[in-house]
Amino acid sequence: MAVSLFQSAIYEAQFGDAELSEIFSDRAEAARMVRFERVLAQVEGELGVIPNASGQAIFDGLTDASVDLAALSKGVLSSGVAVPALVSELRGQLDPEHGQYLHWGATSQDVVDTAMTLAVAEALDVVEDRLRQLIDALAAKAETYETLVVAGRTRGQIATPITLGLRIAKWAQPLIALEKSLADIRGRILLVQFGGASGGNTATAPYGPQIGEGLAKALGLSAAAPWHVDRTGLVNLASWLLQISVALSKFAGDLILHMRSEIREVSAGAGGGSSTMPQKSNPVGPETIRTLASLAKAAHAGLADAADPAEDRDGGQWPIEWALLPQIFIAVGASLAHAQVLAETLTANEDQINAILAANDGVMAEQISFMLAEHMPRPEAQALVKAASKTGKPLRVSLPELCEQDLDWDDLFDPQKSAAPCREIAEAIFAGR
Amino acid sequence: MAVSLFQSAIYEAQFGDAELSEIFSDRAEAARMVRFERVLAQVEGELGVIPNASGQAIFDGLTDASVDLAALSKGVLSSGVAVPALVSELRGQLDPEHGQYLHWGATSQDVVDTAMTLAVAEALDVVEDRLRQLIDALAAKAETYETLVVAGRTRGQIATPITLGLRIAKWAQPLIALEKSLADIRGRILLVQFGGASGGNTATAPYGPQIGEGLAKALGLSAAAPWHVDRTGLVNLASWLLQISVALSKFAGDLILHMRSEIREVSAGAGGGSSTMPQKSNPVGPETIRTLASLAKAAHAGLADAADPAEDRDGGQWPIEWALLPQIFIAVGASLAHAQVLAETLTANEDQINAILAANDGVMAEQISFMLAEHMPRPEAQALVKAASKTGKPLRVSLPELCEQDLDWDDLFDPQKSAAPCREIAEAIFAGR
Amino acid sequence: MAVSLFQSAIYEAQFGDAELSEIFSDRAEAARMVRFERVLAQVEGELGVIPNASGQAIFDGLTDASVDLAALSKGVLSSGVAVPALVSELRGQLDPEHGQYLHWGATSQDVVDTAMTLAVAEALDVVEDRLRQLIDALAAKAETYETLVVAGRTRGQIATPITLGLRIAKWAQPLIALEKSLADIRGRILLVQFGGASGGNTATAPYGPQIGEGLAKALGLSAAAPWHVDRTGLVNLASWLLQISVALSKFAGDLILHMRSEIREVSAGAGGGSSTMPQKSNPVGPETIRTLASLAKAAHAGLADAADPAEDRDGGQWPIEWALLPQIFIAVGASLAHAQVLAETLTANEDQINAILAANDGVMAEQISFMLAEHMPRPEAQALVKAASKTGKPLRVSLPELCEQDLDWDDLFDPQKSAAPCREIAEAIFAGR
Amino acid sequence: MAVSLFQSAIYEAQFGDAELSEIFSDRAEAARMVRFERVLAQVEGELGVIPNASGQAIFDGLTDASVDLAALSKGVLSSGVAVPALVSELRGQLDPEHGQYLHWGATSQDVVDTAMTLAVAEALDVVEDRLRQLIDALAAKAETYETLVVAGRTRGQIATPITLGLRIAKWAQPLIALEKSLADIRGRILLVQFGGASGGNTATAPYGPQIGEGLAKALGLSAAAPWHVDRTGLVNLASWLLQISVALSKFAGDLILHMRSEIREVSAGAGGGSSTMPQKSNPVGPETIRTLASLAKAAHAGLADAADPAEDRDGGQWPIEWALLPQIFIAVGASLAHAQVLAETLTANEDQINAILAANDGVMAEQISFMLAEHMPRPEAQALVKAASKTGKPLRVSLPELCEQDLDWDDLFDPQKSAAPCREIAEAIFAGR
Repeated sequence: MAVSLFQSAIYEAQFGDAELSEIFSDRAEAARMVRFERVLAQVEGELGVIPNASGQAIFDGLTDASVDLAALSKGVLSSGVAVPALVSELRGQLDPEHGQYLHWGATSQDVVDTAMTLAVAEALDVVEDRLRQLIDALAAKAETYETLVVAGRTRGQIATPITLGLRIAKWAQPLIALEKSLADIRGRILLVQFGGASGGNTATAPYGPQIGEGLAKALGLSAAAPWHVDRTGLVNLASWLLQISVALSKFAGDLILHMRSEIREVSAGAGGGSSTMPQKSNPVGPETIRTLASLAKAAHAGLADAADPAEDRDGGQWPIEWALLPQIFIAVGASLAHAQVLAETLTANEDQINAILAANDGVMAEQISFMLAEHMPRPEAQALVKAASKTGKPLRVSLPELCEQDLDWDDLFDPQKSAAPCREIAEAIFAGR
Repeated sequence: MAVSLFQSAIYEAQFGDAELSEIFSDRAEAARMVRFERVLAQVEGELGVIPNASGQAIFDGLTDASVDLAALSKGVLSSGVAVPALVSELRGQLDPEHGQYLHWGATSQDVVDTAMTLAVAEALDVVEDRLRQLIDALAAKAETYETLVVAGRTRGQIATPITLGLRIAKWAQPLIALEKSLADIRGRILLVQFGGASGGNTATAPYGPQIGEGLAKALGLSAAAPWHVDRTGLVNLASWLLQISVALSKFAGDLILHMRSEIREVSAGAGGGSSTMPQKSNPVGPETIRTLASLAKAAHAGLADAADPAEDRDGGQWPIEWALLPQIFIAVGASLAHAQVLAETLTANEDQINAILAANDGVMAEQISFMLAEHMPRPEAQALVKAASKTGKPLRVSLPELCEQDLDWDDLFDPQKSAAPCREIAEAIFAGR
Repeated sequence: MAVSLFQSAIYEAQFGDAELSEIFSDRAEAARMVRFERVLAQVEGELGVIPNASGQAIFDGLTDASVDLAALSKGVLSSGVAVPALVSELRGQLDPEHGQYLHWGATSQDVVDTAMTLAVAEALDVVEDRLRQLIDALAAKAETYETLVVAGRTRGQIATPITLGLRIAKWAQPLIALEKSLADIRGRILLVQFGGASGGNTATAPYGPQIGEGLAKALGLSAAAPWHVDRTGLVNLASWLLQISVALSKFAGDLILHMRSEIREVSAGAGGGSSTMPQKSNPVGPETIRTLASLAKAAHAGLADAADPAEDRDGGQWPIEWALLPQIFIAVGASLAHAQVLAETLTANEDQINAILAANDGVMAEQISFMLAEHMPRPEAQALVKAASKTGKPLRVSLPELCEQDLDWDDLFDPQKSAAPCREIAEAIFAGR
Repeated sequence: MAVSLFQSAIYEAQFGDAELSEIFSDRAEAARMVRFERVLAQVEGELGVIPNASGQAIFDGLTDASVDLAALSKGVLSSGVAVPALVSELRGQLDPEHGQYLHWGATSQDVVDTAMTLAVAEALDVVEDRLRQLIDALAAKAETYETLVVAGRTRGQIATPITLGLRIAKWAQPLIALEKSLADIRGRILLVQFGGASGGNTATAPYGPQIGEGLAKALGLSAAAPWHVDRTGLVNLASWLLQISVALSKFAGDLILHMRSEIREVSAGAGGGSSTMPQKSNPVGPETIRTLASLAKAAHAGLADAADPAEDRDGGQWPIEWALLPQIFIAVGASLAHAQVLAETLTANEDQINAILAANDGVMAEQISFMLAEHMPRPEAQALVKAASKTGKPLRVSLPELCEQDLDWDDLFDPQKSAAPCREIAEAIFAGR
C-alpha cells in the first residue's frame, strides 16, 4: 500500500511511469501556468489590449520565473485554486507598472484549463509513441507466428484451430483502431480556453476571440469558443485511454491464461519467481496490466462525475479532473510500457502447443464435419463426428472406425488447413493501419 | 420501483422510450437474427459456398419466418445464447435438403454481434434525429435571448454578466461537437461480424472475407476483419452516449438551479404540482434527465466491464452488452426527448432576471474595475471597487461616493456592455456546427 | 439484447428471477402503496388525528382497492411520482367525507419510501433463504471432498496442495460472514419513513412519532426518525448484495478455470453444448453468474449516485433507486439460484485431479523443502529442491538423485500430508456459521 | 493537476491528509511488514515450530531493522510483491543460523494482508475520532438553532417550514448510524491472515491455527481462518467509508445551495475570494468535500473490482487494494476534517432566513390548509389555499380576503408552530447515538 502507487519508493517502479509523472509534476504544472500568463501578456500587448511594453516586459520578465510552491499551496487552501496565489507571486517579480497587466481579463479557469491541455498534448505524444511501438512489435510477432496453428478457445473450451499470428493480430486490432482515432481525440481537447470570469470575454471585449487565437498560435493549440463548461472532450479523451486500457487488459488476460501451468503455450516477460515454490513462473507483467486497467476504469468513472458542472464554473467537479486525469494517463502509459516488454519477448512453446492439439483433437471436429459434408449430407457428417466424439477415443482413431467411406484422414486432420484463412485475416488487420 | 423503469406500466411513460424500446424488443431482436441467417445463405449461395438453390430457398423460405420465443428462451437456458435454438427452429421450417445449409460456417457470435450492430444502426438514427432537433431548438432560443443579460454564476456565486443566449449556446456546445463525431462513432461499430467458430473463418475458407463483404452490402453495414474479441467500438459508442447524457445533465442541472424558488430566472416544461403545497412548481423534466444520466453512467460502467473478453469468446462478458447497451440507449434517448420539451418551452422571466441583477450589482464589479482602469492604474481601480463592495451599499451608490473622479456612472453600469461579446461567442458556437 | 434481460421472453429464464420480479412488479408496488395509505388512516384514526370512523372506513374501504396503473402513469408524467395520482384514484373509491382524510399529513416520499422498505423486507427473505441453502450445499460438498487433495493455484500457477473441501469452504467463507451480518443490514433499512412534506411532521404535530410507531407495528417495520434524506441504509444494503455477488463471481470464476479443457478437475451444472463442436461443454451457469455480477456492480455504482440528495427531497436522485434497487436484487437473486445448481451438482473428476498432481509434482516442492529442513539446514533444503526443479525431470525422480541422504521419498511425496490442516481450516470456516 | 493530489506540494494541503498519509507511507508500510515477520518468528519459536532461540533472535534482531526501500522496489519489479525482497533484506541482517527461520511457513500474502489490516486499524481510529468530533459539533449547532425556523426545500422548491436545528440533525443522522456500525466493520476486517502458500497452512501443520492466534494476540487483531481469497470484508469497509463520504457530500451540497448569492441563509468556513470579483464568497470547503466524495466513489468502484480473485491468489486484483484503499481513506479523512471546520463555523444569517420566509409565504400553505381543516372540510380548505396562492399576492393578504370566516390569521401564520415537532425529531436523532 501507498498513498499513491505512482509516487511510492516501493511501488512506483512497477506501477508508475517516470516519463508521464514528470509531465504531471508540480513543477511542470506551475511552469505551464506561468507560460500561459507570459503568452497571454504578449498577445494582449500585440493586440493593444494592454500596453505593448507591459506585454513584452511580462513575457520577458517571467522567462525564468521561480514559483514558490508553498505559496501556491496556501492559495489553494484559501481559494481552492492556485491561480490567484500564482498571479500574486508573479506580480511580485515584476515592475508594478507592468505587473498590473498580468492575467489581464483572464480567469483562473482559463489558466488551469489551458495548462491542462498543454499537459494533455505532451502526454498524448508519449502515449502515441508507445502505441505505435507496441503495434509494431505485435505486427512483427504476428508475422513470426503467421502459420503456427494453436487451439482456438471460446468460453474457456478448446474450440477450433487458429494461428498464433491471428491471435496476436487480434490483440493489436483495437489498438490500430485507436491509433487512427487519435486525431479526433486531439481535435476535441487540444483547445485554448480563454473566456474570462463567466466565460463571456466581457473584460477584454471585443478582443476575446483574437486573444484566443493568439494564445492558440503561440501555444500550439487550436482556438475555440470558451469551453469551460463543456467537459465532454475530456470524457472523450478518458474513454480513448480507457479503450487502450481494456485492449491491453484483454491481451494480458489471455497471456495469464496461456501461461497457466497446464497450458504454457507461450511465455512472455520475465516470470516472477517464488522463494519457496521454484516451479512457479508468475505472470507479473500481465498481472500489472490487469491492475492498471482497473485503476484506469476507476479513474474514468470518476472523470465522468466531473462532466456536468453547475452553471459557469463548478468548484466541486473541477478538481476531480486534476486528480484523475494524471492517474488515467499514468495507468495507461505504464500499461503500454509493460505490454511492450511482453510483446517483444512473447515466445511460442511449440512443443506444448502441438501436444495440446494432439491431446484435444476434438479441436478438429468442426473443420472435419465441414469437410465431410463434401462427401455426405451435412447432418449426416455432423452426426458422424458427434458419435465419434462420444467414443472417448481420439477422433483420429474413432472417425475412421465409424465412417463407412474410405477417406484421406491424414489430410482431413491436417491443422495447417486452418492457417491460410487465419493468415489472411491477420494481414488484413495490420493492413488496415 | 419496477423490475425495469423502462418496461413498467407505471414508470415507462416518464422514464422510458417507446421508439427505442421497439428496436430492442424481443421480436425485433429475433427478426434481426433471422435476417442475418437469410442474407448469409443468399450470399453463400451466390458465392457457391453452399448450393445456390439452397441459398435462395433459405432466403425466400424464411421471409415470413415465425420464431417461437419460448423455444429461444429454452435455448438460452441450455447454451447461454439463443442462436442454436433459433437455427433449430428455422431448420424446422425448411426442406431438410436446404435447411442443412442454414447458418453454414457461422458461429453464434456472428449472428448476435451483427444483429446487435443492426440494432445500433437503427437506434443511432433515432438519437441523431433527436440530437439535431434539440440543437435546432437551442439555437432558436439562443437567438431569441441573444441580448438578454443575466447574472453569470461561478461556484454558486453571482459573478459577472453574460447573456441568456450565451448560456443556451453553451448548453448546445457539447451536443454540436458530438453531432460532428457521429460519423466516427458509426465507423467503428457498424461493422459486420463474420468469423466462424474461433474467428478464423476456417469453415468457409477461402470465402470468409467475400462472405463478410456480401453480408455488409446486403445489411447496410461495413465489412471488417472479425472483431468479436475487440469490444472497444462498443465502449466508444457507449462513451458517445454518455457524453450526450452528461451534457444534458448539465443543462438539466442548470435549469433546476435557475428554477429554484428564489431565482426563477427561467421556466421550462410543465412544472409538477403538489397537492398540499400549491406554491410549488417542481422541475420534473430536468429531474428526470438527471435520473437518466445516472442510469446511463451506471450502464456505461457495466459496459466497460465487458470489453476485455477472455480468448476467442467470453460467455460471461458478452451478455453484459445485451443487458446494458439497450439501457444506455433508452436512457439517452429519453433524456433527449425530455430536453426537447424543455428547450422548446424555455422562457425567460425577464422581470426576475433584472431584479436579481439590480439586487446584486456586485455582478458589475469586475467589468467596472476594468473600465475604471482606463481612468486610473489597474490596482487602484481594483482597490476602489473592493472598498466600495465592503460598504454594504450597492456599488451604484458607493462607487461614485468613493471615487474622486467624475465619471459617466450610468454608462459604466450598463449591463448591455456585456451583450456584444457574449453574442459573438454564441454565434461562433452555432457557426461551428 | 432486450430492453431488460430480466423482462424478456428470450432472456428472462436464464438471467432473471421470477420470484423477485413478482415482488418488484407494478401490481405489487401499487398494492404496497395502498397498504401504506390504509394503515396510515387506521393508525391516525386510532390516535384521533383524523376521525376514527374515517380511519376505519378508509382501511376497510380500500381492502380490495383496484388501482388503474394507467392513471398512475399519467400521474408520474405530470409530477414525477405516482402518489398524487394514487391518492386521487383511491379517493374516488371512498365516500368524500372519509376520503378527505386519506394520506393525511403524509408526503409522497413517506408512501414511496415505506413501500420500498416493505419490498426490501420481502426480497431479503428470499435472498436469505437462498443464501442459507447455498451455504448448506457447499458445506455438504466440502465434507464430501474433505480429504481430496488438489493442486492449489496462485497467480495462475500450480502452487502447493490443498483439498477440494477447503477450496469449497473458501467459496462459502464470505457467504457465511454475510449471512451473519444480515441482521445489521435489516436494522438499518427496514424502517418506516413518515415525515410529512419537509420531513418535520409539522402537519400532524404533535402526533408524528406516534403515527410512525403505529405504522411500524402494523407493517412489521421499525420506527425511526424520518430518514428521507439519509440514503446510506440503502447503500449499505446495496453493498451487502454486491458482496454476495462478488463472492459468487469468485466461485463462478474458479469453476470456469477448473472446467477448462485442459483442467476439467470438476464439473458442475449442465454444460452448454455447441452444434458444430461436440467436444465442448460450455460453463453456462458460471458465466451467467459472472454476467450478473457485472450487472450488480453497475447497479451498485448507480445507487451510490443516489445517496447525497439535495436538501429535503431530490427529485433527480430518488428515482435512481426505483430503477436500480430491483436490478441489484434480481441480479443477486438469480446468481444465488444458479450457484445453488452448481453447488449441488459439483463433482470432482478425481482421475484428472490426480493426473494433474502427478504431471506437476513441483506442487510438492514447498512441502518437501520444509520436510527436508528436518534433515538439513533450511537454505540447503531449498537449494536442493530448486536444483531438482531445474533438471526438467519430475521432482520424484530428480530429488532422490541429487540428495545425498537416503530418505523415505514416498512418504515425503505423499500429498495426503496436506489434507489434515486443510480439513481443519474448512471445518473452522463452517463452524463459524 | 498532480500525479496525486494527496502528495502534491501545491494541492496536498487542501485535498490530502497528513495524518492518514503518514499511516500509508512507504516507511510505515515497511515497518508493519517487519513487525509481522518479527512477531511471527516469536510466536513460532514459542510454539516450537522453529527453534525458540531463533524466534527470539529474529524478534530482537530486527527491532530496529532498517529497510532499503530501493531493494523492495527491485523486488516488486521482479515478483510483483515486496515481500521476497524484504525477507532477503532482513535475512542479511541476521545470523544465518537464525535467518533461515525468518518468514517460516508464511507466504507473501500473509505479510501484506496482515500489514494491511494493521494500517486499517490505525486509520479507522483516526476516522472514528473525527466522526465523533463531527457529530459532537453538529449536535451543538443543532441545539443552538433548535427553534430557528427556515424554509424547508424539496425538489429545489421552497416547501414547508422546518428548523435549522432539524436540518443539521439530518446531516448528522447517517453519521450516527455509521458510528454505531463501526464495531461490525472492524469485526469483519481486523483479522490476521496466516495461511501459507495456498492458504492451507500445510507448511506449518498442525500449528497453523495456533500461530494465527499468537499473531492475533501480539498484533491486536482477531484470529480467523485464512481469508486471503475473501475480500468482502474490504468491500464492506470501503462501503462504510463511501457512506461517510456521501453523507458529507449531502451536507456540503446543501451548504453550497444555501450559500448561493440569493440565499445566504448560512455561512460556514472561510469563503474563498476572487481577485476581480470582490462580491464573491466561494464555498471552497464544501466544494472540496464534493470533490473528495467523487474520488472516494471512484476508489470504491475500483475496490469492488478486486473482490473476486481467481483461485488461491490473484496477482492482478490484489494491488488494486494497495492503490485504492489508502485513497478512499484519505479522501474520507480529509472530508471529515473539512466538515469539522464547516460544522464549527456554521452560522445562521437570521435576517436573510426571515426575509426569505416572508417573501415566500407560500411556505405556510400546507400548514395553514391543515389548520383550516379544523374550521372547514379538508378539500374546501385546500381549495381555498390554492385559490389564494393563485392571486399573486402573499397568502397573508389573499387568504383573509378570500376566506369567509374570521380567523386568527396571525396565529395561523406563525412559523414557530413548526418548531416543536422539528425539535422533537432532532432530539430523537441525537438520542439514538
